[in-house]
Amino acid sequence: MSEEPDSEAGGRVTARTTAQNAQLALLLEVASTPKPGNVDREREYPELRFEQFLAGAVGTHAGFEAAADGEGLGAAFERAIAGMSNQTGGNTQFGAVLLLTPLVAAGGRGAVTPERATAAVESTGVEDAVAFYRAFEHVDVAVREPPEGMERFDVRRGGEAVPAIREQGLTLADLMERSASRDGIAAEWTRGFGWTFELARVIAGGEGPVTERAAAAYLALLSRELDTFVITQHDRETAYEVRRRANAVLHDEESVYRFAEDLVDRGINPGTTADIVAGGLFVALERGLQV
Amino acid sequence: MSEEPDSEAGGRVTARTTAQNAQLALLLEVASTPKPGNVDREREYPELRFEQFLAGAVGTHAGFEAAADGEGLGAAFERAIAGMSNQTGGNTQFGAVLLLTPLVAAGGRGAVTPERATAAVESTGVEDAVAFYRAFEHVDVAVREPPEGMERFDVRRGGEAVPAIREQGLTLADLMERSASRDGIAAEWTRGFGWTFELARVIAGGEGPVTERAAAAYLALLSRELDTFVITQHDRETAYEVRRRANAVLHDEESVYRFAEDLVDRGINPGTTADIVAGGLFVALERGLQV
Repeated sequence: MSEEPDSEAGGRVTARTTAQNAQLALLLEVASTPKPGNVDREREYPELRFEQFLAGAVGTHAGFEAAADGEGLGAAFERAIAGMSNQTGGNTQFGAVLLLTPLVAAGGRGAVTPERATAAVESTGVEDAVAFYRAFEHVDVAVREPPEGMERFDVRRGGEAVPAIREQGLTLADLMERSASRDGIAAEWTRGFGWTFELARVIAGGEGPVTERAAAAYLALLSRELDTFVITQHDRETAYEVRRRANAVLHDEESVYRFAEDLVDRGINPGTTADIVAGGLFVALERGLQV
Repeated sequence: MSEEPDSEAGGRVTARTTAQNAQLALLLEVASTPKPGNVDREREYPELRFEQFLAGAVGTHAGFEAAADGEGLGAAFERAIAGMSNQTGGNTQFGAVLLLTPLVAAGGRGAVTPERATAAVESTGVEDAVAFYRAFEHVDVAVREPPEGMERFDVRRGGEAVPAIREQGLTLADLMERSASRDGIAAEWTRGFGWTFELARVIAGGEGPVTERAAAAYLALLSRELDTFVITQHDRETAYEVRRRANAVLHDEESVYRFAEDLVDRGINPGTTADIVAGGLFVALERGLQV
């Protein structure tokens, strides 16, 4: 994934701090509409509301600041999740914050590039893995059963899995590597953040309100990649259906509003796709996207 | 204005910092819908969009932190406005930030009470007034012609008015006192923040999503007080019309959506009422309102 030339210019191209751009990316993501299957400005679930995403985004700030300041990725992530969880909706932005943390660390060191973000991932150690597990104690996150033989590393065990992590000497990068085949965020961490930077280009190259560009980028990604959160919460078949119908919407064969309503009715939430949009928004903001 | 008993309990009742509660109050305010005549989650102007309010709120953080940390109200306000202005929509939350600044200063010292906020106002000096004028250089704010004999103190002159301010030895509290009869925010600063704390009680005592309670509080205030921003931008007659129709909506004699559309079509923006809702949300959050 090559970089935009202007991302190499010295100095910051935005008056916001890196942590503020991350926070704004979360806010713009949830404000983008229509984003079928996800909470957005016009759609919410009775128990998971738009306003809880606002509170979640506000709460992440100290964690993102820590990541930008060079604190370990795991500790910074745990702090952001603790802050995010200070609202009554539960898991609002766990995946997006996980995706953003190494990107924010990269932004704290210079222009955000896939190389810098990957370097942040590769610098993680066992303590980052431990903090990552502890983050699951702050909020309920939907995850799949661990693969056979991996029960000791089930993230749902939270801090209880820590002795096994330490014993094996697993880093956070190791954990992501092991999950990359079945989790879209782990895949981004492990494979150079390809979709994130691709969406940043799409969003930066678009026209009109940022939230409309982000909604279009969401639909484009939904039509190309299976959403791993849908696979986790439902099954592969449902993920295929979502991808097929996103394509139908893009080809004007289905109404985006009907699609959105059907997904909400059935509780189908392509959350990983939305998380990657948040990542793309952050990179675009860091590169000077105006709101 | 008496305080809620629980606001006297020692220690903070919220895990968010005071500055974060102020930022969240701005976000919840703009997310509250329907709020006839103001940008909200479902209504925006082509040149003043919802997403610009999100960016504005993110930008205020350092200024609110300064206010909570005891920096002078004027300097903290100017910093918040400089940050708020880092988006392309222009004046998104000038009035709300002005109202929030002494409340945030109060929150930095203990439980937010009218007495503490008034003490913050009364502690202002000439340098606070100077910084207040400088804040107008960051963003275009709609204000009325100054009264006769007050031309030298026209806020639209920004920093150019500073020599006159210094010469007269005017404090920021003095300036607010002089504007209280024609500006609803100045009136709050000068008269114990009566409406702000009243709305905090209404919002805290309500049920359901916070943004619905805030929208109801907005309509209730609109039906009782003339909006001074409407008087500034239009005239007193228009402000009377808005109040009368807000009453009609409350008595089911007019649809809130028709009212909202008509105000947007005619560019009538009861911005002061929305600002006071933001103040009420902040006080309620500081007192433990859950989102």
